[in-house]
Amino acid sequence: MTLSPMPARFMAVALAEAAAAARRHEVPVGAVIVAPDGKIIAQNGNRCVELSDPTAHAEFLVMRQAASQLSCTYLDQCDLYVTLEPCALCAAAIGLFRIRRVYFGAYDPKGGAIEHGARIFSHPAAHWQPEIYGGLQETDCAALLRNFFHARR
Amino acid sequence: MTLSPMPARFMAVALAEAAAAARRHEVPVGAVIVAPDGKIIAQNGNRCVELSDPTAHAEFLVMRQAASQLSCTYLDQCDLYVTLEPCALCAAAIGLFRIRRVYFGAYDPKGGAIEHGARIFSHPAAHWQPEIYGGLQETDCAALLRNFFHARR
Repeated sequence: MTLSPMPARFMAVALAEAAAAARRHEVPVGAVIVAPDGKIIAQNGNRCVELSDPTAHAEFLVMRQAASQLSCTYLDQCDLYVTLEPCALCAAAIGLFRIRRVYFGAYDPKGGAIEHGARIFSHPAAHWQPEIYGGLQETDCAALLRNFFHARR
Repeated sequence: MTLSPMPARFMAVALAEAAAAARRHEVPVGAVIVAPDGKIIAQNGNRCVELSDPTAHAEFLVMRQAASQLSCTYLDQCDLYVTLEPCALCAAAIGLFRIRRVYFGAYDPKGGAIEHGARIFSHPAAHWQPEIYGGLQETDCAALLRNFFHARR
């Protein structure tokens, strides 16, 4: 998928967060929240190991940080960039925080819950439907994960 | 469903937390985490309004509190009691925290994600399968919710 310059720029920041997570021995996933004016208001990587918290996924952390920073309950004017297809927890949180657009990198047939598994936004009762763009810089995002798991085998 | 004395006791605590949530103008859902020795290690109700956090659901709060209190990443020896069928966020968190048994009260055809909608534990890739007991003290749990929403119409 060819990206316009802005999404490519934000995915580059998410990728840098993913690479930083790998250096902390965390599964390399990174995420960014962007406000409507194009400013990054939160960026982070996985911190499950550091925080001993299995819910400390990159995208969940940035949504919480952004809501807290904007003193907003909802993030319906904000976009999320994340290097991996969100899991069910994060996809459900995307719905609860009412994220406007989700851009994700690698597809995750095993743990993903947007295009796979629980398909959180595909049920009639889903109360929020973000715009979703998958497969952005998929090769780079997937390579980070592959190299990380390859090195631990 | 007839309950043995222990589950009935813990659901009564969850129901009291739900009633307390209603008095704070929160959707009346309450939850309890019980350790293997039968001690309650966390109890709470919804605090979405109070915390301006759409993820501050009763069961998510008690899982985080319990993990923090036990200094444990996982809660695989603990049981969760909650007055309403968990949503996708909370069901996914139940999986991530590896809760042993889930006892829930009212079924939620609209927002529930165990027996309805995303059916979080029904996918081949679901990495954790808690024991699940639904419909415990269903009438009381549902009545609290019905009265709350009826009073706001």
